[in-house]
This record gives sequence, structure tokens and C-alpha cells, in this order.
Amino acid sequence: MIQIAVMGHGVVGSGVTEILLSHGDEIAKKVQEEIYIKKVLDLREFPDSPIADRFTKSFEDIINDDDIKIVVEVMGGINPAYDFVKRCLQNGKSVVTSNKELVAVKGAELLQIAEDNNLNFLFEASVGGGIPIIRPLNQCLAANTVNEIDGILNGTTNFILTKMIREAMSFEDALKLAQNLGYAERNPAADVEGHDACRKICILASLIFGKHVYPDVVHTEGITKITLKDVEYAEAWGGVIKLIGSVKLTDGKQEIMVAPMFIKNTCQLANVDDVFNAILVKGDSTGEVVFYGKGAGKLPTASAVVADVMDCVNHIEQRRNIYWEDSDNRDILPFEETKYAMYVLVNTDDKEETIAKAEKLFDEIDVIEKPDAGTSELAFVTPVMKYSDFEKAFAQLPDSSIQTVSTIRIAAL
Amino acid sequence: MIQIAVMGHGVVGSGVTEILLSHGDEIAKKVQEEIYIKKVLDLREFPDSPIADRFTKSFEDIINDDDIKIVVEVMGGINPAYDFVKRCLQNGKSVVTSNKELVAVKGAELLQIAEDNNLNFLFEASVGGGIPIIRPLNQCLAANTVNEIDGILNGTTNFILTKMIREAMSFEDALKLAQNLGYAERNPAADVEGHDACRKICILASLIFGKHVYPDVVHTEGITKITLKDVEYAEAWGGVIKLIGSVKLTDGKQEIMVAPMFIKNTCQLANVDDVFNAILVKGDSTGEVVFYGKGAGKLPTASAVVADVMDCVNHIEQRRNIYWEDSDNRDILPFEETKYAMYVLVNTDDKEETIAKAEKLFDEIDVIEKPDAGTSELAFVTPVMKYSDFEKAFAQLPDSSIQTVSTIRIAAL
Repeated sequence: MIQIAVMGHGVVGSGVTEILLSHGDEIAKKVQEEIYIKKVLDLREFPDSPIADRFTKSFEDIINDDDIKIVVEVMGGINPAYDFVKRCLQNGKSVVTSNKELVAVKGAELLQIAEDNNLNFLFEASVGGGIPIIRPLNQCLAANTVNEIDGILNGTTNFILTKMIREAMSFEDALKLAQNLGYAERNPAADVEGHDACRKICILASLIFGKHVYPDVVHTEGITKITLKDVEYAEAWGGVIKLIGSVKLTDGKQEIMVAPMFIKNTCQLANVDDVFNAILVKGDSTGEVVFYGKGAGKLPTASAVVADVMDCVNHIEQRRNIYWEDSDNRDILPFEETKYAMYVLVNTDDKEETIAKAEKLFDEIDVIEKPDAGTSELAFVTPVMKYSDFEKAFAQLPDSSIQTVSTIRIAAL
Repeated sequence: MIQIAVMGHGVVGSGVTEILLSHGDEIAKKVQEEIYIKKVLDLREFPDSPIADRFTKSFEDIINDDDIKIVVEVMGGINPAYDFVKRCLQNGKSVVTSNKELVAVKGAELLQIAEDNNLNFLFEASVGGGIPIIRPLNQCLAANTVNEIDGILNGTTNFILTKMIREAMSFEDALKLAQNLGYAERNPAADVEGHDACRKICILASLIFGKHVYPDVVHTEGITKITLKDVEYAEAWGGVIKLIGSVKLTDGKQEIMVAPMFIKNTCQLANVDDVFNAILVKGDSTGEVVFYGKGAGKLPTASAVVADVMDCVNHIEQRRNIYWEDSDNRDILPFEETKYAMYVLVNTDDKEETIAKAEKLFDEIDVIEKPDAGTSELAFVTPVMKYSDFEKAFAQLPDSSIQTVSTIRIAAL
């Protein structure tokens, strides 16, 4: 029998205990050990839980219990999760977490402590919820050099964009609907401003490059400025707008970014709708591989946590080989130097003149024809260019007769 | 240093040596051991190989070499692969294979020998080529009860169907093109008759149910009878025709089958084109998860083999927990009892009368309207019904004025 503790009894935590209790026999058969939840840490009380007698409000009950070999951290946030996880790893307990903020901000340090103590620190559930991605990247694709990952990593924003694309709902209405359905928080900033997706792409980037990429060095844009007009022009162009977390290695530099992007309908990410997530991985041997599923939610996320716990049980003596080193992030290409083609929407009194001016500024442009376009609207796509060059040219575009409205990157997918 | 042997230097085998030689340093860093190819078994000669001096024509050179701890079997077929693999496992050598026929036909026996000898028998590359699927099913989704898997498991047939769907090419022309491009063998039966897909769904079914499912008990249909007319009616119905390997558990019975099926355009499998494969897994906690990528090819498949070798190196002392027991396949539902809605195409002198007759026979039907349908064509979809009931009703449909043309299952996806 292996004894574990679960820190946090919120959405994911209650799912973890639910799965361990409901699937206990099958899980025990698979790992050839019974997994026993000895303690659950939460400040709230849950008298109706079938294991109500094992709840505690004190972390000391867990850290001081030498029988507890694995601790599940599903509290979220940095404090006190960071302190608790560190102390667990320093005291002989392996840790499984679903906490993407913790892994994105403190991953290198915690992985080092785990290695120093020959313990496991696993976090499959931190990216993609129930979608297997960390372990496939680390093991199944281990014989590949992975040079690029592009993903729809946040279900809330994907739900909002899907409503805008499929039902012509405005951003504000779609956000309200997402909040009513429980997909978005009352303060939706972490989702709609791209921070959640940023943490996830940082974890994936750290894993494939073996060096920690910190969220604060990653250029991050959300979807709050996307309008229905942009969505319509994306359709006229032959695609959709998705919030993409992207990382790739070019000439030894990491290009990493979170931003809404136009993607072609033929791309495997284009049909990923609603709260689903999908992650496209490019390996030098496998080519494109895509992982698709529910990126969040109680049971999908909890099942990934429990799978990590089972892996810890299978490797209670021998560490899983998962690690990245700390980094000063000097390998990150400044986002001004990243290269994308850009979609530009302007209002103009004279389309022909504006097209001529844009062609001068951007070398050449592809005008997007939309049958019901307003008479003053002009949308076009620039060539692939350095963002700093785009900005310079773009600044010269507006005048008394031209007002710029939107700019969005075109994904190179 | 870990010494290995590679049996077979064909497409996959040469890819395995290529990856181990070209990615040797990175791989050694990841598994903290150098992996050294001591012997390559092939009856042919490869004087230009950088490791030409390590080739042998005798299996005895491998089986009698106690330094060789891991043997890669990429010869294909049952003989002599089965005998060689068995002897390796009986003589203290872990085995990694990409041989789906071997695993589908002899998996239970070989897994038992591996378990008895505390060795690994791994076969990630046997299904889905470079797509991670065996390990994710066995580990990442281990906390789930997986009740259903549906997959596009054969790249050759998917290429042919894609050409028929996207370019209105006939089956015969698409097959010829596939042969010219090297995607199909000169004798294409194993692919186009569904046998290859059958072996793969058997492996997946064995894995999720823990009991061996043998290919000869699985109802298997190929795509040779699919016509462009069927493809057009599928489009009019709102979908495409794909060759689907499907297994699900219903009331303790396994429904397993390989057959061409209509699938809706909204299904994640509908946009899987060309030689790509995709596998949709339904877990009770995760919901739908889809794995997409290249299902065959030298480097994708070889990279999956090498990842398994790396896993063996990481678990040289401790067995990976992958196992299913032998079975008499009594749990398999006879295919006559499986339930599907059916697409039916007939030629008729009198559409109204035929519709009335079909409504009587099948209770109710949905007629598929196709703008350019021939005046004598009638296509409809039946309700979901037991196949034996469908057959009974269908036999009563034709008469002097009605000739039946095609029947194809509608996937319940």
C-alpha cells in the first residue's frame, strides 16, 4: 500500500479523490499496489465526503507523516503551493501537481530539488488537462528533436472565439455566456489576456529545450481586441482566428509567443472548437503530431493527476527522467525580431490610393475580398516580415483619410 | 553503455540505425547511457552502411551474445520473427518491435514470456507509426476506464479515400497512384481489404480490455467496393467515408470491427486526410481524446521504435507494466448483433414506391437528397438496428424494379 496526501479539495482535488475512490480496484490492479489517501488538506470543511475523517487544515499533518510518500498539489497559485511543494520534495515525498503557474514560474528549481532528492515531480495535468502531452513529449517523442510546438492551450478563449466564429456572437456576449456556463472566471483576465496560455507554452518550451522559459519574457497578447469584423475577414481569407501559443527554434534562438492568429482551415488546429484544446508538435522524425481533447475540467484534469500518481507508484525507487535546467532566457528572440505575415484592417476614403500606399510601405500586399465589405473597409495581408519592420511601415500608414483598425498575425502553419 | 541488436534492415530498420547514429548524443544524454548497436541482422548486404562491419546473417550471433540486452525486431511477418523474439525473451533480452502482425497474433504469449522473465516487450510503433498511442493509453489514460476507440489506422486506404473524396478519382486510379508513390504494395490486399487496420485495432482492444483479441474473430471489410457515387452521397449527407477500426464495450461484450463508414464532417476524424492516421479514444474521465499524425513511414515509425528502446534502457532492471492475458474471445459480440444505422443506395423504376417499401421494411428512413442524382437513384439511411435485422429487411428490398447497389455503415461518432 502506498499512502498519499492531496492538498486542495477544489474542482481538480475533489476529482482526484473521486477517481481514486471510484476506480480504486482497477488502479490497484494496474500498479500492483493499493493507493490510499491518508490526508486531504483544505481550510474548508467537507462533512459529506466519504473520507471526511481524513481531512486536515494543517500542512504539518502531511509534512510530518513519514508514511506519506506522494503528495498531490492541486491548490493552484504560487503561495503557499510553492512553499509546501518545496518542503515535500526536501522531505522525501514525491509531488504531482496540476498547477501550471507553479511549474511555469518555479519548475526549474523544483525539478532540481526533486533530482537532488531522487524523487519525482510530475505535472502532466498542468498543460492540456486530460490530454496526454508532457509524457508523450518526454518519452514517446524522445528520439525526435522537437523544433516547434503550436497549441490552442486555453479552453475559455477557444470557447469565446468559437462562438464568435460559428454564431457571430460579439466578444462581450460570448464572454458573458462563458461566465454563465462556468467556463470563465468573474475576473477573466488570466484567460482572455493570454496569461494562462503563456504559462502552458512556457512549460512545453522548457521541456523540449531543456531550459526554463519564464512567462515574464514571453510576448503575450489576448483576444479582447478581436472583433466580429476580424472574424469575418479571417473567413474570407480561408481560415479562423485562434489564440495560439507558439514556440520554435530558429538559428539557436527560441521564438515564443502567445497571440491571436489567423490559421488556414486546412490546418489541424482550425477545427478545434469550444473548450477543446489541441497541441501540434513538429518532430524531425515524426513530422506533425497533434494531441486533441478537453483542456480543462474536473475529471479530465484529475485523471491526468491520478495517472501521474500511478507513475510515481511505479517509480517509487527510480526517478522518472524529467528535467530542465534554469536559464537566464538569453536564448529568447526579442519579439520585435520574430517574423510573421500580418493581417491589417483599415478604414479609408480611397481604397485604390490606400492599396498603392500600402504596397509601397510593405513591398506587396494581398487584399482580402469580402463580398459584403463596407465601402470604406480595406483588409490585406503583408509579406512575412520582422515585427519591427512591420511596425515601422505600419506607423506610416494612417493619415487624415486612413484610420487603422486591426492587426493580427498570420500563423505559419 | 547498453548494447542492442537490430533484426531487419528494411525501411524501418534502416531508420532505427539512422536515428540512433544521428541522434546518439542527445539520446545518450536523455537516458544517461550510450546505446550501442552491436549487431544488425539481415540476409542482404549493406557495404555502404557506416556500421557495415556489424552486420550478420546469423541470428545465433545475437542470441548467443550475452552483452546484447535489448533486441529490436523490425523484420515484419510471423516467421521467423515470432521464433526469434520468443528466444530473445527466453534468453534475458528485452524486445522492441514495430511488427503489428506479430503483436496482434502472438502478443499474449510474448507478453507472458516477458513477464515471466522480468523483461520488457514494447511495441509503440506497431500502431499509428510515429503517433504516440500505446504508451498514452497504458500510462497517461491509466486512471480512465476506456470504453471505446475509433481510428483511421491505415494510411494507404486513407490516401485512396482522400483522392476519391477531394479529387473525385476512382478507386482504381487512386490505388494506382498510391502504388506509384510507394504508399501501397503491388499486392495491396493487406491494406485495401482492411487486414492491416484489423491487426491494429486488435492490439488497441487487447490493451484496453486486458485480454487478447485475435484478428481472425474480427469482422473486417475493406474499401474495394466503395464507389465515387457512395462518396458523393456521403458528402450530400454531410460527411465523408473513412475506413474505421472500431472497438467498444457494451454490456460486457466487445463490439469490434473494421469497415468503411460514413462519418459526419463535424467529427475530429473527418479531416484526417492523405496518409495521416488518427485515433479517437473515449475515456470515462477524459472524454474524447484524439491522437493524430503520420501512421507509417521510415522515420516516424523508427522514432517510435527508438523511444521504446530508450524506455527499455530506463527500465533495464524494472519491467514496464504492460500486459494482457490470453483469451478465447468469447466476449466478442458476433458482428450480426452489432448495431449501426445503414446507408443504402438502390436503383429503382419508381422512387415513391421504393421509399414506401423501405419505410415498411426499416420502420423509417432518411432519404439523402443529392442535387445531381440520377433519376433512378435512391439513397437513404436506416435507423440504428442490429445487423441481422438489417440483413433480413434488406433481403426483401430488391424486386424486378429495385436493384440494390451499396450498403455502408454510419459511424456512431
